[in-house]
Amino acid sequence: MSELNSALHNSRFLRACRREPVDTTPIWIMRQAGRYLPEYMAVRGKVSFIELCKTPTLAAEVTLTAQRVLGVDAAILFADLLPILEPMGLQLEYAQGEGPVIHNPVREAADVDRVVEINAARLGSLDFVFETVRLVRRDLPGNIPLIGFAGAPFTLASYVIEGGGSRNYVSTKTLMYSDSGAWAALMNRLTASLIRYLNAQIDAGCQAVQLFDSWAGCLSPADYREFVLPYTKAVIAGLHSGVPVINFLTGNPALLPLCREAGGDVIGLDWRVDLADGWQTVGFDRGVQGNLDPVSLYADLPMLRRRAKAVLDAAAGRSGHIFNLGHGVLPDMNPDHVKALVKMVHEMGQRP
Amino acid sequence: MSELNSALHNSRFLRACRREPVDTTPIWIMRQAGRYLPEYMAVRGKVSFIELCKTPTLAAEVTLTAQRVLGVDAAILFADLLPILEPMGLQLEYAQGEGPVIHNPVREAADVDRVVEINAARLGSLDFVFETVRLVRRDLPGNIPLIGFAGAPFTLASYVIEGGGSRNYVSTKTLMYSDSGAWAALMNRLTASLIRYLNAQIDAGCQAVQLFDSWAGCLSPADYREFVLPYTKAVIAGLHSGVPVINFLTGNPALLPLCREAGGDVIGLDWRVDLADGWQTVGFDRGVQGNLDPVSLYADLPMLRRRAKAVLDAAAGRSGHIFNLGHGVLPDMNPDHVKALVKMVHEMGQRP
Repeated sequence: MSELNSALHNSRFLRACRREPVDTTPIWIMRQAGRYLPEYMAVRGKVSFIELCKTPTLAAEVTLTAQRVLGVDAAILFADLLPILEPMGLQLEYAQGEGPVIHNPVREAADVDRVVEINAARLGSLDFVFETVRLVRRDLPGNIPLIGFAGAPFTLASYVIEGGGSRNYVSTKTLMYSDSGAWAALMNRLTASLIRYLNAQIDAGCQAVQLFDSWAGCLSPADYREFVLPYTKAVIAGLHSGVPVINFLTGNPALLPLCREAGGDVIGLDWRVDLADGWQTVGFDRGVQGNLDPVSLYADLPMLRRRAKAVLDAAAGRSGHIFNLGHGVLPDMNPDHVKALVKMVHEMGQRP
Repeated sequence: MSELNSALHNSRFLRACRREPVDTTPIWIMRQAGRYLPEYMAVRGKVSFIELCKTPTLAAEVTLTAQRVLGVDAAILFADLLPILEPMGLQLEYAQGEGPVIHNPVREAADVDRVVEINAARLGSLDFVFETVRLVRRDLPGNIPLIGFAGAPFTLASYVIEGGGSRNYVSTKTLMYSDSGAWAALMNRLTASLIRYLNAQIDAGCQAVQLFDSWAGCLSPADYREFVLPYTKAVIAGLHSGVPVINFLTGNPALLPLCREAGGDVIGLDWRVDLADGWQTVGFDRGVQGNLDPVSLYADLPMLRRRAKAVLDAAAGRSGHIFNLGHGVLPDMNPDHVKALVKMVHEMGQRP
């Protein structure tokens, strides 16, 4: 990775990642380039979701457009959590109107043998991601960082084992409980693959990366500690140094002390926890990102403003807060409310 | 309520509710009378779910059978959370193979006007519940308490507003955020109705009651405090004194300090939190119930034993622990594993 230029290095978002003072609270929005935006839907009118992900010019376009129309302080790569699984040997399909499906999920310990680690050669089949990063970085304003991302090992393992969405993660936990060797083998392969994948995103031009452990909230602290923490920690430790990592886990505030142990310059908080309490739990030597309940975007603007202010008040102007929703924006949300939220945060977050 | 006889008063379960010493840890299982039991399925072969709920002889039979075949320390009334909504004016249907549906959900503030509080006359239409309680109490062993239950106000309000299950509780939260007057009116009617309904269960013969706030985990602590806590607290405060109340909320350990404020002799813990930490949070002047991850029942018996022991170890033999799963048993679980779990807890929980 080349040295950052000064404008990028001193951007609000990267300063906040390093817990340095900022003029106002930086904000970006999880799934900011998603279906709620008419500009995104215009592109989607021409191609399917997965074609969009795999066409760098289009993926770059929606990434750049979202940053520009919202006025947020960072762009986030438009991509999906699951394509990394294809070069690992999983057969992935995005059926129309359904969630993604894996046609050859891992159901028994023996199935783990056919999941292969991504080496340098296999990484090439994910070039569409790195090319998107290059195109975005080329056209993004010089003071706007680009965030790369990937699913955390547990969330990816859950997809690999369940074959799709899940309510109770029965197959995942059953494998975890019944065959710790097979579980470790799967998690080790995901871990090594993720390190290569995220470092390649950084090499292509990302200034920060976020790990999404979207499904780990179904775990008890003891299970997270035994079966998940070592792998998430290894991913974070294996990334190029000097690049901020946001470690985001949703669905269980009792895991926050373990997120701290796993690592990350910034810990993502969902809305289930009070931001001040969550920050205290993860420690003020880390940044935090969050944590407005996304459903607040359906409220009228005065109520949205009050709710955004409550999040800023909980952060108390402390350096190291990146404003975000506690989860992704939903498809039927009003883009004007999202734009208004960005303006409100920039205005109310100003430091005296 | 009449005085309890000595055998009932000194039962393991009620002693634990009062945090008195016990010979071994009491256990019951949420949804212990459910679809995983062949004895239950035999009854369900003859009638639909809702017919079973509304036929006291059958509902009593499945309640009693589950307690007997499992050897658990309490029976829990076989009933559903939602029939209380019918005399309140909601049109409820249990479609085959689907979840329950409410055909006239509350979608706007004005709709709240047609939700009516259950008064003494309307309570009569829920007589099938109270008759079930009487039949169970008549035939239950003299040292086995019967637990009554209801949904907590927020969980019932969510059903009333969403009309069924929900992923993001958008309609519920939107009403809550946009019209605090309509929200308060709905919650007040649910609160008053729940007090009547639960006290009638106690009058009919229940020795304890549990409130299920199955969906409140979607709330931030600030929202729970403002929009939910006052109502749950009012329900608990309105129940006949001397009858233990178990206050169970699932899906968000960060709400546990507020559960304590809402009240309850025993606070239910789901598996997302370590039992020792959860007990410390709610205070050792309360009992706790929980909190084995239900998916543990799919593990082999040695692993199940290790996982049950970890829960008992976290309770450290302290008086006031009632063993349970952190959520209900699932339909495809092995009844032999449930029976084995009960034996394991009774054996490993013995006090020296």
